[in-house]
Amino acid sequence: MYAEAGWAGFTFDAIAARSGVGKAAIYRRWDSKLGILQAAMRAASVGFVEVPDTGELRSDLVCVARTLVERLDQPVGMAELRLLLDAKLFPEEFADLDHARAASRVKARETVDRAVARGELPAGTRPEFVFDLVRGAVVHNFLMVPTGMADAWRARRAQFTEEIVDAALAGLRAQGTAIATS
Amino acid sequence: MYAEAGWAGFTFDAIAARSGVGKAAIYRRWDSKLGILQAAMRAASVGFVEVPDTGELRSDLVCVARTLVERLDQPVGMAELRLLLDAKLFPEEFADLDHARAASRVKARETVDRAVARGELPAGTRPEFVFDLVRGAVVHNFLMVPTGMADAWRARRAQFTEEIVDAALAGLRAQGTAIATS
Repeated sequence: MYAEAGWAGFTFDAIAARSGVGKAAIYRRWDSKLGILQAAMRAASVGFVEVPDTGELRSDLVCVARTLVERLDQPVGMAELRLLLDAKLFPEEFADLDHARAASRVKARETVDRAVARGELPAGTRPEFVFDLVRGAVVHNFLMVPTGMADAWRARRAQFTEEIVDAALAGLRAQGTAIATS
Repeated sequence: MYAEAGWAGFTFDAIAARSGVGKAAIYRRWDSKLGILQAAMRAASVGFVEVPDTGELRSDLVCVARTLVERLDQPVGMAELRLLLDAKLFPEEFADLDHARAASRVKARETVDRAVARGELPAGTRPEFVFDLVRGAVVHNFLMVPTGMADAWRARRAQFTEEIVDAALAGLRAQGTAIATS
């Protein structure tokens, strides 16, 4: 419901109506709509960067990109995007999101440290930058699909994610070389 | 108001209260809230890809990235992001957005055609891909800034946008080479 209606539409009344649970029963368990949203997000394992350790950076990132693209096509992924947006506008209500952002940064750093140790990325690569390029391109690619082309996009999205990862990796490696020689 | 409250919160009642204009007066001019949003977006020159022709791809893209990052930090940029999100959930209400997306694709193709003609990008580069990388990374970079670090981010955002453009260009050129030799 939050994915569809956003923060303004995510009200006790609407939650009660949609869930078929009485408002009094909901209030006994949660005293704020933020609490309900947090519980729902935990139940859906919302997180922004889940990175596997496959032993190779490219396959780590392909996995990140594929998981993201599959989630974006479902309400939970839309809810995650909405959360990031709403947190910009209501920073106090969504202060908790900073924990998720911090956890993302830790995972990003671990992934990049492993890649640098294996010689797959230049030392000094900023971890956030890797994920800005990969995850950002995946999100933008998804958002810009014309309404009538969703099926054609679904058929090609696995290919798009690999192209994005390959371009990002080539760009990061070239930039590392530029830094190293400048 | 749409940037803050989203589609569910963008109601005739809320618009009347916030603008101080009577609901009857608003209804005389617009018969749907979508009409009001469209008029507001036109007034704010909402568009998704405004690309200048500077004579060089890198500076075209730096300009695109800078304009985007400055807009994102204002309500109009947040409204644009929200529109893209809401259009996924309410494709019929926001069918008009496909015109903006199509206009973006035309501009992207013109920019990339010019760059290919000047030898700045490999022939066959998919225009949307260039903008997925550049605009996507800018949006992701913005969304992931922790709440308390907005000022530090503002101080570095010009540098971030140039890094993004350089990495994207290097990645696209490397990928073109890979395609050409495969």
